[in-house]
Amino acid sequence: MPLVRITLARGQSPEHRRAVADGVHRALVDTANVPRDDRFQSVHEVPAEDLYFDPAYLGQARTGAVAFIQITLNQGRSLEVKKALYARIAENLAASPGLRKDDVLVSLVEVPKENWSFGGGVMSYP
Amino acid sequence: MPLVRITLARGQSPEHRRAVADGVHRALVDTANVPRDDRFQSVHEVPAEDLYFDPAYLGQARTGAVAFIQITLNQGRSLEVKKALYARIAENLAASPGLRKDDVLVSLVEVPKENWSFGGGVMSYP
Amino acid sequence: MPLVRITLARGQSPEHRRAVADGVHRALVDTANVPRDDRFQSVHEVPAEDLYFDPAYLGQARTGAVAFIQITLNQGRSLEVKKALYARIAENLAASPGLRKDDVLVSLVEVPKENWSFGGGVMSYP
Repeated sequence: MPLVRITLARGQSPEHRRAVADGVHRALVDTANVPRDDRFQSVHEVPAEDLYFDPAYLGQARTGAVAFIQITLNQGRSLEVKKALYARIAENLAASPGLRKDDVLVSLVEVPKENWSFGGGVMSYP
Repeated sequence: MPLVRITLARGQSPEHRRAVADGVHRALVDTANVPRDDRFQSVHEVPAEDLYFDPAYLGQARTGAVAFIQITLNQGRSLEVKKALYARIAENLAASPGLRKDDVLVSLVEVPKENWSFGGGVMSYP
Repeated sequence: MPLVRITLARGQSPEHRRAVADGVHRALVDTANVPRDDRFQSVHEVPAEDLYFDPAYLGQARTGAVAFIQITLNQGRSLEVKKALYARIAENLAASPGLRKDDVLVSLVEVPKENWSFGGGVMSYP
């Protein structure tokens, strides 16, 4: 059920992009009760000049390797689950592809469970 | 009022991409009370390696032709309308460009009506 | 905290794209109480044939220069703030890069404040 959109500055290797996607998915599975086979993600590269980020907002130190990760998911995760998810995504991406944790931005968009069709023309969670 | 973002693996013909966009819009008009001239959509192609989907989640059989369709729209559609919308999008895309229904993924993001400006610098539905 | 995604037809100059992004950010700062250093935006160009817009919906007169601006932000802005934001974005983009106000489409997606991590693996607004 999560639909994940990852935005990066152009120029990262396919291995880098895949590691980011993999790390986000594993974090969802390990902290937010997402089934392992519930994986739907797209990675969007834009020219570096089309990715705007403040290098220091809230005390972080960001670089051009920053990843914007927007996750649309079912509502109802607790504060604790969300905190664990943020921490795990950053840990995973620090381990591989080696992003600095400050370069990991996560935005959650929550929706009710009837807002999905994962194929077949049917409501997936009726 | 819907704003539709369609994500596909790169390599489909312009006719294919247009048929997907057309079919989604017709389904919105025919099932969800969207005016015919209320059409705002973008199609985003990514390299096949940047589109991640599980081939079998929830019993579907997906292929690289999978289309991620995220629709931002006003809140308030009933369960029945949402079900009809999912069914119709899949039917339309099966008819043209000939997608398998299992390759049609729909995500709805609902917003209150004051969250739109369709031009002129004004709130569109005050 | 806003995460801004701007979608344009391919072919605008880097200066044009930057002016759009700049104008949206200044409007958020000046009307919606967004800190100046709270800037996170991406600009996505698609082929003109992949950007669908009705030229006349709601009485506007749109052209191929239309900009789709989707802003994910914390919930709770008043109707007045939203109206001021729409007006200011259109004014700013009319001033630079010289868009017609009718070519400025804004969509807001509101989320609770716990839905953000701006880096470091931590919830940014706990």
